[in-house]
Amino acid sequence: MASWNDYLHNNKSRYLEELTEFLQIPSISSLPEHADDVRRAAEWVAKRLQSSGIENVRIISTGGLPVVYGDWLHAAEGRTVLIYGHFDTQPVDPLELWTNDPFKPLVKDSRIYARGASDDKGNMLVSILAVEAILKSQGDLPVNVKFFFEGQEEIGSPQLPEFVSANRDLLACDLVLSADGGQWDEDQPALIIGRRGLCAMQLDMQGPAQDVHSGTFGGTFQNPIHALARLISSMHSSEGKILVEGFYDAVRTLTDFERQQIAEIPYSESEYKTSLGVNELFGEPGYSIYERLWVRPTLEVNGIWGGFQGEGIKTVIPSQAHAKITCRLVPDQDPDKIFKLIEFHIEKHAPSSAAVSLKRLSGSAVPYLIPYDHPGNRAARVVLKELYGKEPHVARMGGTIPVSGIFLNELGAHMVNFAFGLKDENIHAPNEFFRLGNFELGQKAYCMMLEQLGQLDIA
Amino acid sequence: MASWNDYLHNNKSRYLEELTEFLQIPSISSLPEHADDVRRAAEWVAKRLQSSGIENVRIISTGGLPVVYGDWLHAAEGRTVLIYGHFDTQPVDPLELWTNDPFKPLVKDSRIYARGASDDKGNMLVSILAVEAILKSQGDLPVNVKFFFEGQEEIGSPQLPEFVSANRDLLACDLVLSADGGQWDEDQPALIIGRRGLCAMQLDMQGPAQDVHSGTFGGTFQNPIHALARLISSMHSSEGKILVEGFYDAVRTLTDFERQQIAEIPYSESEYKTSLGVNELFGEPGYSIYERLWVRPTLEVNGIWGGFQGEGIKTVIPSQAHAKITCRLVPDQDPDKIFKLIEFHIEKHAPSSAAVSLKRLSGSAVPYLIPYDHPGNRAARVVLKELYGKEPHVARMGGTIPVSGIFLNELGAHMVNFAFGLKDENIHAPNEFFRLGNFELGQKAYCMMLEQLGQLDIA
Repeated sequence: MASWNDYLHNNKSRYLEELTEFLQIPSISSLPEHADDVRRAAEWVAKRLQSSGIENVRIISTGGLPVVYGDWLHAAEGRTVLIYGHFDTQPVDPLELWTNDPFKPLVKDSRIYARGASDDKGNMLVSILAVEAILKSQGDLPVNVKFFFEGQEEIGSPQLPEFVSANRDLLACDLVLSADGGQWDEDQPALIIGRRGLCAMQLDMQGPAQDVHSGTFGGTFQNPIHALARLISSMHSSEGKILVEGFYDAVRTLTDFERQQIAEIPYSESEYKTSLGVNELFGEPGYSIYERLWVRPTLEVNGIWGGFQGEGIKTVIPSQAHAKITCRLVPDQDPDKIFKLIEFHIEKHAPSSAAVSLKRLSGSAVPYLIPYDHPGNRAARVVLKELYGKEPHVARMGGTIPVSGIFLNELGAHMVNFAFGLKDENIHAPNEFFRLGNFELGQKAYCMMLEQLGQLDIA
Repeated sequence: MASWNDYLHNNKSRYLEELTEFLQIPSISSLPEHADDVRRAAEWVAKRLQSSGIENVRIISTGGLPVVYGDWLHAAEGRTVLIYGHFDTQPVDPLELWTNDPFKPLVKDSRIYARGASDDKGNMLVSILAVEAILKSQGDLPVNVKFFFEGQEEIGSPQLPEFVSANRDLLACDLVLSADGGQWDEDQPALIIGRRGLCAMQLDMQGPAQDVHSGTFGGTFQNPIHALARLISSMHSSEGKILVEGFYDAVRTLTDFERQQIAEIPYSESEYKTSLGVNELFGEPGYSIYERLWVRPTLEVNGIWGGFQGEGIKTVIPSQAHAKITCRLVPDQDPDKIFKLIEFHIEKHAPSSAAVSLKRLSGSAVPYLIPYDHPGNRAARVVLKELYGKEPHVARMGGTIPVSGIFLNELGAHMVNFAFGLKDENIHAPNEFFRLGNFELGQKAYCMMLEQLGQLDIA
């Protein structure tokens, strides 16, 4: 039997050419004028799946931008792995900060520079190439595989919950592998076992019917900016604890073992401060930085505005003031309940002298946690340890990936992070790149992972 | 001797034609493309002064937009009255809300509609026409008169302090009459004896070096919006008292007589709330509405901004947050000292976890108060009582007119409000108008006022 390793080796330059071709499609999902490019990317992916030996390949409409599905379901044992990724990209502005055209990939210093190189075209292509290598060298796969790639991850996957719910049979699986994500750093692998959830809202404070002259009327009515500032201040203690009643009630207490796992991950406070550009860190008392980032919730104002913002002065008291707020949530907080608690807080603390309203914004997500010793993580651990020569960190992420919660909810399947991007690869920023070393390492890793999964009892 | 009254009567239609011509010049001082129009307005005023019999008329450069000066100094007693007004206007936007072209005056229902009709071309022209009527009918004036009209009142008179200081001899006088301002309402005259001062600043809060992802980093550093909201909240009690230490220290306590004067002015809380469009009034405890407006200082945030202001959500924690602040000041508060007190408050209350800076903005003005029984007010009271058949209210204004403080400082001369605009005339707004009845009443009033001043000992 030929080896997938030889196959990968022999096709190395073709694979790089294909990645280059894929990266040339400007599939920016947030810009309507690129909708056709997103569809072109879907067609590219569908063709590439077909040529790998994947069956039942189709582009499926979601009502928004399309998804691509394909499968190979001939494994005797019937265990099924769903591989998830996305072929849409972020926009490219500010374009002037790029050193190459973001859709004319540049290979330099063993890196490929292009929008989408790391997030997520490079990473998702890895999984297709690995499956091809096994199929073409061995004729069959150690597990059943379904591919599910979407075209609107970068705009928050608006149609995904409904689509997954309506296609449970098609997508049914024992486990999801996410080809969107990454490892800790070049030398250090990681199991990412948790992501925070999200609850978003807008707070509007209404003062007088129109903007009002601050001399002629000032001093006799509530300035909505003052009322908003006071209300925002009421939500945190000066030490950084959230004061919304009941906010922490559902938060699961970490076990000693979990705290220990987090504490084992090395951390440099001075490097962290430098990366943020701050002189002092600040956050909920009693928790380490990683705990604040990963297992403690936040309530953050993302934007505030009201009145005059120009040069110089304008002696006006504005009619309105506004704030955007998002909360990052941790197990077992529920976005709907959190919104109600904040509503209640506002009712209790808002002054009667201004009219306040709170409206929910879309972008809700439940917090996600996969058991660190889930069979998928056990398999990943074996593979990563072999490839890196090191135990992976058992880490979490402060950000939110709604799709993990959706898959768990709708398919009953946990998602294992299995991707090879790194933090420094400028995703969502100018000069995004992907390491060619990781492009190749990832292909091997996927082959080994499918073999591991073929040996494990996943159910 | 012919009477000025007959002269005014005989020239009524010509005076209206002249006002119409004056209002056709779009002398918007804030728009550089109208600088030539402001100069044309200066030339129009200079010519009109000359044809009235005023001497030494000249247009004088200030470094910015010009002023117009002229005088008549042949009164035996040598008492000198300086008449102040301005020939520049506010911009006209939103233009679509005007029912006529703002620079094509429309006469309708005994009103003339045009930008600048009330503020201040109509009011300032009144004083020239009155002086002409006396001079042409009687040959001389009861007092020495100097006219001083400026072309940049609507942009805060940036060169005026320096100009007045450099031209003390030219402008020397015993008393200033302001032809910029107005009366209480159609049937009720007023002596305006006080104006609040102003101190302006910008508060900047610096968080991380760049905007930061609220998931990836949120919870570990100070959100500059939170820090700004807390700092703003620290400046007021929840009841509306200013908590900046020492802020009220210099405020002069009202005498019982002064409180009584204010209390005598009728006031409808429900009408006032309706005019603002609020359900509830709010302000410093222990003071009436007029006291809060006229004799108590304020600290108001005029604008606030930071982070995301668009539709939907953006999960960012901003690098910076900003606020514009102005204080309205009352006797004997000093703008420089107030700024220092706020600086000190911020030093004391700002969190160490964000970098705060406070910078002074231009627009400073000392509070102004003229004794209610000042000879100029005594004269005005006689004239207003005769014309309206009522005692004038002894009122103040919440707004700021820097020029009154400048004249007092530089010339040692108090300013008497002597103008005939009314609050409802849409100044600074679409469809500004001036009542033709007040255009004529004002001409009489100025003639009577100059006669009164000729009989009084002003020094």
